[in-house]
Amino acid sequence: MLATKHQNTIDAAVKANHERTFYSHYPEHPKAYGEEAHAKGVQSYQQLLNKPFKQLLQTGETGWVGEEVSPYTQEVLGVTYPTFAVDDLVSRAGEAAHAWAHTSVQERAGVLTETLERIKDYFFDIANATMHTTGQSFMMSFQASGPHANDRALEAIATGYHELLRYPAELEWEKPMGKTSIRLKKTFRAIPKGTGVVIGCSTFPVWNTLPGVYANLITGNPVIIKPHPRAILPIAIAVSAIQQVLQDNGHDPHLCQLAPDSSDHLIAKTLAEHTGVKLIDYTGSSAFGNYVESLPGKTVFTEKAGVNSVLLDSVNDLDAVIQNLAFSVSLYSGQMCTAPQNFFIPETGINTAAGHVSFNDVVQRFHDAVVALVNNPKMGPGTLGALQNENTYHRAQEAAQLGGKVILAGTPVNNEEFAKARVLAPTILEVSSADSSIYEKELFGPIVLIVKTKDTTHTIQLAKQMAQKHGAITCAAYTTDPATKEKITDEMNSVFTPVSFNLTGFIWVNQHAAFSDFHVSGGNPAGNASFTNQEFIIKRFVWVGNREMIA
Amino acid sequence: MLATKHQNTIDAAVKANHERTFYSHYPEHPKAYGEEAHAKGVQSYQQLLNKPFKQLLQTGETGWVGEEVSPYTQEVLGVTYPTFAVDDLVSRAGEAAHAWAHTSVQERAGVLTETLERIKDYFFDIANATMHTTGQSFMMSFQASGPHANDRALEAIATGYHELLRYPAELEWEKPMGKTSIRLKKTFRAIPKGTGVVIGCSTFPVWNTLPGVYANLITGNPVIIKPHPRAILPIAIAVSAIQQVLQDNGHDPHLCQLAPDSSDHLIAKTLAEHTGVKLIDYTGSSAFGNYVESLPGKTVFTEKAGVNSVLLDSVNDLDAVIQNLAFSVSLYSGQMCTAPQNFFIPETGINTAAGHVSFNDVVQRFHDAVVALVNNPKMGPGTLGALQNENTYHRAQEAAQLGGKVILAGTPVNNEEFAKARVLAPTILEVSSADSSIYEKELFGPIVLIVKTKDTTHTIQLAKQMAQKHGAITCAAYTTDPATKEKITDEMNSVFTPVSFNLTGFIWVNQHAAFSDFHVSGGNPAGNASFTNQEFIIKRFVWVGNREMIA
Repeated sequence: MLATKHQNTIDAAVKANHERTFYSHYPEHPKAYGEEAHAKGVQSYQQLLNKPFKQLLQTGETGWVGEEVSPYTQEVLGVTYPTFAVDDLVSRAGEAAHAWAHTSVQERAGVLTETLERIKDYFFDIANATMHTTGQSFMMSFQASGPHANDRALEAIATGYHELLRYPAELEWEKPMGKTSIRLKKTFRAIPKGTGVVIGCSTFPVWNTLPGVYANLITGNPVIIKPHPRAILPIAIAVSAIQQVLQDNGHDPHLCQLAPDSSDHLIAKTLAEHTGVKLIDYTGSSAFGNYVESLPGKTVFTEKAGVNSVLLDSVNDLDAVIQNLAFSVSLYSGQMCTAPQNFFIPETGINTAAGHVSFNDVVQRFHDAVVALVNNPKMGPGTLGALQNENTYHRAQEAAQLGGKVILAGTPVNNEEFAKARVLAPTILEVSSADSSIYEKELFGPIVLIVKTKDTTHTIQLAKQMAQKHGAITCAAYTTDPATKEKITDEMNSVFTPVSFNLTGFIWVNQHAAFSDFHVSGGNPAGNASFTNQEFIIKRFVWVGNREMIA
Repeated sequence: MLATKHQNTIDAAVKANHERTFYSHYPEHPKAYGEEAHAKGVQSYQQLLNKPFKQLLQTGETGWVGEEVSPYTQEVLGVTYPTFAVDDLVSRAGEAAHAWAHTSVQERAGVLTETLERIKDYFFDIANATMHTTGQSFMMSFQASGPHANDRALEAIATGYHELLRYPAELEWEKPMGKTSIRLKKTFRAIPKGTGVVIGCSTFPVWNTLPGVYANLITGNPVIIKPHPRAILPIAIAVSAIQQVLQDNGHDPHLCQLAPDSSDHLIAKTLAEHTGVKLIDYTGSSAFGNYVESLPGKTVFTEKAGVNSVLLDSVNDLDAVIQNLAFSVSLYSGQMCTAPQNFFIPETGINTAAGHVSFNDVVQRFHDAVVALVNNPKMGPGTLGALQNENTYHRAQEAAQLGGKVILAGTPVNNEEFAKARVLAPTILEVSSADSSIYEKELFGPIVLIVKTKDTTHTIQLAKQMAQKHGAITCAAYTTDPATKEKITDEMNSVFTPVSFNLTGFIWVNQHAAFSDFHVSGGNPAGNASFTNQEFIIKRFVWVGNREMIA
């Protein structure tokens, strides 16, 4: 039975969740999946193009939509997806719910882990689909939508498995009453809250979707996935694999439905407001996220916009730091929710092991490192990827007009493989700490602001204020002084922002590792949820305890 | 150090929380506290009367208030309490917060358990104060405000202790990278959300207050307690004990402040809306509860009104069942949130081991049992207690006019010890299932409705609908048929209502035991919180993970 087939995997994931040391079930190196997997993946991806996607096991479609365009080729993918009436989606989920709620946690965990194993077979298809919908480089597409997303999903399964088995399902309660006693049989049931909707985004259509999907499913709730109309294919492949495994094992594939829509007829609000929908996971803009959070009677998990800061105080090796930061701001052109935007640097410059470096020199060296990276044909295009959205492209091109001093203007960068790819070097602007109208908002895409501060105390004050008012998902800080480190930790943590100190080499503030790093804290305006803490799981079901007299 | 003094107590409570078998740290029998404790308690309670309550370690009072009246004697207690400006309360809490947040979990748990031990010294003072503010009988006053409340508080400490120590505070994360690796030091901090306010009720001023108080304190948050103006003394005694222990151990007593007010100048809304207040626990009316839940930017825990049902299908020993139910509806005159109100009985009557009993006979025997109980001078007054609120008294006296057929009119019952006590026999009305305007609301106090249904399927349908629409905290069901039992469980659990089956003897549906029964599920309109599941604890802090490069 699937209830036991993956027990070792689940046990190891539960252990990893608690220990939070390095753990990964799905290797992040493409080569781990065989030498031919990459080429085969390109082929099978191409076979999906220019035809209807018929792999879903859902019935009752009302039409077909599809408007994906590759940010690399500017060509339409030509894949169309079935649409469904919202009432039908919700009622089919409801019909599938009862049997799933009464399926044991062990069986649910087994079946869901099996779905991940099936998704693994499509990692390279999904990688290519991700690349040509999001504009991520191949490597990021592979890792983020493949092994990293699967690891996050397994993390959700494991957290659910642990929480759902936390209490004995049945026990005898015996209360002594002098010479006699009262005996009750008690049973504890984790009652699923009801149908969930997961609303995806265009930049991370799988990574940001699977945690909510698996959190719902492990806790016994059916789920409907509403992808972004410009990034359907990657998650459609995953959903079809999930549905196949559900069906193969005697479960209703409508437990996990895809709900594609088109930009001229969006259904996210209709789904979210449907009385049959109880749980909503959302990744995207703050405006829509705040709307979802305000809906009465719904349990809501959001990841919204935030403004991430870099605090430069003092360093050992400035070159290593600058290299790390240049890569960090270039990676996927600032389209990650974890990408740093505001660099706070004291006007007096910073101390390094090799002596003091002035503010202007730090800025110049950062400029030089970014320019060298993006213009390196072997490194630049693969790091920058492409801009998912035309609007982001145009906004970034005009970013130099935002104000302040232009350190680097975001000009097009050539991608040798894809001549039409939407690629821009990051725009770097130097602004004064008084220019809060410029730096006090998320400038999504390849735009970096260097904010000149009086000193590190001023830096901390501004970074903290930003996180508190506008939210932050990450913060990078560089200091060689233990007291300053403690102060930054205290102040940023007090506004629920995690800090990464002194990163250099092959680790960047943008990265959040499954089984170890909580993703989004839930404590500041950047979102109210966190992958995958207990809250992300236990708010999806309710413990109900029944009692029965034992005669 | 207190960090270790109570370790065995805390470990045992953590274990009990997980196993959910019978556990109690504070014995519920008054005699366990010594033969003289009762008499001493009466004395020291009387010494508190007719003077200002000066035992609080709070400074800056702006005046004195006090309007408590004993439901037993109709006399004012004459105790006055200091009032404080809301801004001062919040700012003093804020000043105390930082050091407490940086106090280890072990030390916090130790100090808080010590406060419970100190409160124990005042159990009998608190019992008398509870009796003469709430109208509970002495025994209920003692148990609910003493050992049971302390056990709930210890449960909250233990749940917090477990959750806060769930992850390693510090660890090394090492990611293999081919022949080398990346090493990060990671630290996990549970950041308290901020100052909490606990708004108490007039019927259970200690039992419903301590869980939120201790949940806030164990998770590092200061707390302000806003008691009901008619039931301040019981919790004031507890708070003074808590403050004393905090101060004795070098902690700021303003971590736990009392905020008395008067009915002509209520401060609950001002406190709840204060930007410095992040957490709110509330027990009371649905109207105010819904308001509190709607406040933006607050984490809110509520227990509101609900309508609890009794489902009669079939029984073995009808007498034993009727006795149990007569006691259940009489206990504290229906002023418990767990008291049953609507009795659903099929018009065809019910089967018993001794044969079939008609609807009318069931009703008659229930009537007779209630009359016998309340008119028994040894049992009646001690079970009924007194009506806390004059309005409840008048409303219950007029309940016979609500409609339906009057089975028993709520006439005054004599209390030999307290001639002026506000005591009424329960009003019992028989209504038809069409009279939903009568039974579809909470009728707080000694009012019982018998709803005649077509059959048990109809019974289940109505009880489920009530719980879904109006909320329910408990449900008692009587059936000897396993399939019916399963159906009732499924249907009532699906609206997040726990069911107690076939209770007879010395256990009643009204009782919820610490360490075993979750109190309120959080899943239906009767409230959004549950004593003391993990959600009740983990929503009060945020996990933040920091990372640092290991060179």
